[in-house]
Amino acid sequence: MNRRSLLKGGLLAGLAAPFTGIKDVIAKPIGGSKKAKNIIMLVSDGMSTGTLNMADIYSNRILGVGSKWLNLYRDNKGVRALMDTASANSMVTDSAAASSSWGGGMRINNGSLNVGPKGEKPQPILQKFKEKGKKVGCVTTVPITHATPAGFCVNIDNRGGQDIIAEIYLGLKFDVMMGGGHKYFGDKRPGGNLIPKYLTQGYKVAENRNEMLALDNSKPVLGLFAEDGMPYEVDRKHDESLLKSTPSLAEMTVKAIDLMKDHKNGFVLQVEGGKVDWAAHSNDVSGLIFDQLAFDEAVGKALEFAERDGETLVIITTDHGNSNPGLFNANDNNRKFDGLKNFKRSNTWLLAQLNQSFSEQKIIDLIKENQGFNMKSEDVKFLMNHFKDITPDQLYNESNLPFYEYGKILGKYTDVQWAGMNHSGDYVELTMFGPGSESLKPFVKNYELHNFMLKAAEMPESFLVKS
Amino acid sequence: MNRRSLLKGGLLAGLAAPFTGIKDVIAKPIGGSKKAKNIIMLVSDGMSTGTLNMADIYSNRILGVGSKWLNLYRDNKGVRALMDTASANSMVTDSAAASSSWGGGMRINNGSLNVGPKGEKPQPILQKFKEKGKKVGCVTTVPITHATPAGFCVNIDNRGGQDIIAEIYLGLKFDVMMGGGHKYFGDKRPGGNLIPKYLTQGYKVAENRNEMLALDNSKPVLGLFAEDGMPYEVDRKHDESLLKSTPSLAEMTVKAIDLMKDHKNGFVLQVEGGKVDWAAHSNDVSGLIFDQLAFDEAVGKALEFAERDGETLVIITTDHGNSNPGLFNANDNNRKFDGLKNFKRSNTWLLAQLNQSFSEQKIIDLIKENQGFNMKSEDVKFLMNHFKDITPDQLYNESNLPFYEYGKILGKYTDVQWAGMNHSGDYVELTMFGPGSESLKPFVKNYELHNFMLKAAEMPESFLVKS
Repeated sequence: MNRRSLLKGGLLAGLAAPFTGIKDVIAKPIGGSKKAKNIIMLVSDGMSTGTLNMADIYSNRILGVGSKWLNLYRDNKGVRALMDTASANSMVTDSAAASSSWGGGMRINNGSLNVGPKGEKPQPILQKFKEKGKKVGCVTTVPITHATPAGFCVNIDNRGGQDIIAEIYLGLKFDVMMGGGHKYFGDKRPGGNLIPKYLTQGYKVAENRNEMLALDNSKPVLGLFAEDGMPYEVDRKHDESLLKSTPSLAEMTVKAIDLMKDHKNGFVLQVEGGKVDWAAHSNDVSGLIFDQLAFDEAVGKALEFAERDGETLVIITTDHGNSNPGLFNANDNNRKFDGLKNFKRSNTWLLAQLNQSFSEQKIIDLIKENQGFNMKSEDVKFLMNHFKDITPDQLYNESNLPFYEYGKILGKYTDVQWAGMNHSGDYVELTMFGPGSESLKPFVKNYELHNFMLKAAEMPESFLVKS
Repeated sequence: MNRRSLLKGGLLAGLAAPFTGIKDVIAKPIGGSKKAKNIIMLVSDGMSTGTLNMADIYSNRILGVGSKWLNLYRDNKGVRALMDTASANSMVTDSAAASSSWGGGMRINNGSLNVGPKGEKPQPILQKFKEKGKKVGCVTTVPITHATPAGFCVNIDNRGGQDIIAEIYLGLKFDVMMGGGHKYFGDKRPGGNLIPKYLTQGYKVAENRNEMLALDNSKPVLGLFAEDGMPYEVDRKHDESLLKSTPSLAEMTVKAIDLMKDHKNGFVLQVEGGKVDWAAHSNDVSGLIFDQLAFDEAVGKALEFAERDGETLVIITTDHGNSNPGLFNANDNNRKFDGLKNFKRSNTWLLAQLNQSFSEQKIIDLIKENQGFNMKSEDVKFLMNHFKDITPDQLYNESNLPFYEYGKILGKYTDVQWAGMNHSGDYVELTMFGPGSESLKPFVKNYELHNFMLKAAEMPESFLVKS
């Protein structure tokens, strides 16, 4: 299954490029277009197609303008493909195997990061770009040591070793690494606090929004803005203290671009909306929609830069579907879905407030205040009955909160329903803008993007993963 | 919301076409390409993105070749768009409003067929094509009077009046109308048997597969191959008598093309895989996947013809998502999903066999024989407990069978899960091949296809719906 033949045409095109006289043969973009000096790849983690389109519908109806992602299509500027997201051992990938397919150019088993089924350790793509003189970095709303950024950076057979990944990053000295995950670096880290080592190695470490905004490009940057994942956007937006302490994904993206854009050899940046996936795992509708919109804002910033710059390839996609949510029914003149605008808090935040000792009225009031609707007595009773149940398959929700049941109840109030609480095998949306995008075919397999990016940036032929 | 401005560029391009000297100004394709003499529009009704890709995954894994639809992308031949499927009164359309948007060029309220919110009655597109000398027709696996074919043919404010629609068809004298729905035409029709009238009007009426295969193009054709909807493909394939009595969608498609292809002014054909939607409403996994594959076979036949012909625009899409199924988990080396190859019967067929008096072992045996897996005792008990429950929102399942519960059980055996039992507001896949396809933009609204088809075929400017 791995590294199959679809890319052959492309590879041969690369091989047929004239010898350039320098040490390495250069892998030319297929279309012979301008080189992509910079690449920004934006990943909304675990985004089913319904997530993309509900965010766009919300944006159109409530904010009065379509999403940046789909407006690329409306403006006839983007190039689209369907992407097959399977891993080596399953049609349904996890984020580690998915990111590794892009990062390492081959499919591996779920759970690993750039370690193949036979122990292969393909060089991660940001190491390649760094080796050839580009600035490189990642920003995310989940720990910066999490699967999606790590798949661009490291080889390790267990994605769970985030404290080890934090130590590997230290040696890589990449230019910008920002997100959550303080506990894998700081004084709570089991293997010892790494932050003093980062400082000794010449890093600047930012631990809140203001420190991030003040960063300049004189030193490599480590940004850690939460112990674990950063807050959901819907929670951040309605909490004064989080607004002060925590940057948005768009703010991190703008800063990362600013820190790397003047580099003479260009830069490669991965941007992850990581909590879209967590929200889907929790069937958390406002977590999902508003984090997708926060991701979309970052997409907008990347596109703005790329339009001005003219030498930047922007890639926008997801690593896999998750929970296949959809907008159902929507009678009643769509009033229910529009009620999402009244949400001030995610389900994750709300459920963490509840206590079995609360009166029914207290719970009704709490929901009204934070999510804007009048929950019926029968629904509150159903919820509280399940409050102690353990929800199965909740990879990222260690607490035993009744996410499934609350998601099901909210389906009646928002018309948003879910098919599961886990990743799906859907083929996903992939979009490109800028130099190199003209070579995108309408159907691709995830691992093909590795060579695609290398060729778009005219990296050495020797860097390409052979099929 | 209706008939908005996105098409303006296209309309203006049409208006700017040089005066041709004939009575009507011709609406030229935007790209100035060859005219589409013929159009074949294929609609997999109620196809969520997971339906499309699970059928492709099945096809790849079990049949050893990708689906015809997605192979168009793999071969870099098709043009893709996302289509917004909303109706005038809801973000979630029904099939009547959806087909009317294509058929009449404007968004209307759910439930109507080409009757607008203010009583507008736009001329249905097949009437336009017929008026200008083309042969026209529809084939479907549901009643030929059902919403999707009817939306291309008639104006009526209630889609439920299928016996009336059957009478309207009589007057239209379209060239090929084939599918199910005998009860709306024959001796069971409340308002009286229409078939003698069809014969008097010069129609040839076919009532089984052999009669259909023997049809020639000397007369207009009415084909009625089931009282209501035709059988699911998985049931038809495993029943000798159904194989004899009932044609496949691909066979009907080939026949319809054959009957119209030699006409000097060309033809327009709508092909509907109507039971994909019914299967989704019933969370019926083998109904869904094998009807989607049967639809795909029809797609293959249309594309084969179009490739040979060179003057045929093929449009492949769906009218809306339904139930947003997905392939979840898929551990265990994908063994569960592959078990679909052992299904000989749909859930609809199977549940209709069950009887509360059956022993548990008898039910286990029945399931093993017809769907290939060993159902656990606890699951059989759960199923039988719900056997008398009424499943909510089952538009097309008049019986009170426990479709929801059985779909949920089968999720554990097949890894296919569902987000609901109804239509969703997802933006959907739209594909074109052939002359005119080069004008397709990456994002369209459903009603824009009306003018798109008219322009691709260079119909009179006066036929275009003005924005």
